[in-house]
Amino acid sequence: MDKLKKMITELGEIKEGNVLKVDSFLNHQLDVSFLYEMGEELYSLFKNKEITKILTIEVSGIAIASMAALYFKVPVVFAKKTESLNLDSDIYKSKVISYTKNKEYNIMISKRYLNENDRLLIIDDFLAEGNAMRSLLALAQESGASVEGIGIAIEKGFQNGGAFLRSNGYNLKSLAIIDAMNDDKIIFRE
Amino acid sequence: MDKLKKMITELGEIKEGNVLKVDSFLNHQLDVSFLYEMGEELYSLFKNKEITKILTIEVSGIAIASMAALYFKVPVVFAKKTESLNLDSDIYKSKVISYTKNKEYNIMISKRYLNENDRLLIIDDFLAEGNAMRSLLALAQESGASVEGIGIAIEKGFQNGGAFLRSNGYNLKSLAIIDAMNDDKIIFRE
Repeated sequence: MDKLKKMITELGEIKEGNVLKVDSFLNHQLDVSFLYEMGEELYSLFKNKEITKILTIEVSGIAIASMAALYFKVPVVFAKKTESLNLDSDIYKSKVISYTKNKEYNIMISKRYLNENDRLLIIDDFLAEGNAMRSLLALAQESGASVEGIGIAIEKGFQNGGAFLRSNGYNLKSLAIIDAMNDDKIIFRE
Repeated sequence: MDKLKKMITELGEIKEGNVLKVDSFLNHQLDVSFLYEMGEELYSLFKNKEITKILTIEVSGIAIASMAALYFKVPVVFAKKTESLNLDSDIYKSKVISYTKNKEYNIMISKRYLNENDRLLIIDDFLAEGNAMRSLLALAQESGASVEGIGIAIEKGFQNGGAFLRSNGYNLKSLAIIDAMNDDKIIFRE
């Protein structure tokens, strides 16, 4: 998606540890009109998959998943990272090991909102090593739902998540794939 | 908003400690078409306020704030609850004391995304005691932005947040106000 590449080039900031900061439109301040365009693009990529539900993970996946869901006319379910009084006791739960943040956490989804009749589109803002995505896929598998597609805004193609998912047969589409980045330049995959 | 009251009545579950669970459409699974209608309703309530930015707080405020922002055609900024590599070092920060969860946490907003030229609409899913809201207002005040309105999906009118905000002159509108609830019944304010 050319407009996304342009916005990453113009507004993205590269920080230590391969961190790409795009918080002026995607991770802290949200350019919702543009997120709506990304939702439309994701719809055009997956509209023939008879999606019944969009699955994402809190926090930054929620806005873009919601915009896509307006096009698909299906609900969003977001996996939670924190225990809460509000969460059912009957849940799917999976551990995420975040190497970059050097910590472990659980993601959880109530069993009420995911089942074997669901045809899922998983949407997230970033894909890097794909650790959170693997845990999300484990929850989907446990529920019996089918994963019809994975839509990502920004894939860091120089990390391993994308290669892992594609080699395992997932229908992964990323709106922008970064093959290399340094202080001077971001190189996108054609 | 009659449809919201109807959905709360039909789908809400009341749990110990005055917890109203609406996670089938607002807090875990998101009924985005309905959230879009709530966004339109919030737009109709505040459209004459020359809003430049919608402010909310992660997690559950993000989807409804984003839907409203599609109508207002302004960005959303969400306050963060967790430190991250992605967050600027130059931030507004305020402590929230959550009595119900019996814990303290900080909320943070990068100074880049809030300033004295902003005319804010603050949107959140729930208002109960209003502790998180007070901290959000403190951040807004520190930035010099003006708070032109506060739009809430569900206000628990039997708790103190709403009365505090109204008595302090804030233009608070809630799409549904619950005056009392027990296992049998939810009573809404007219």
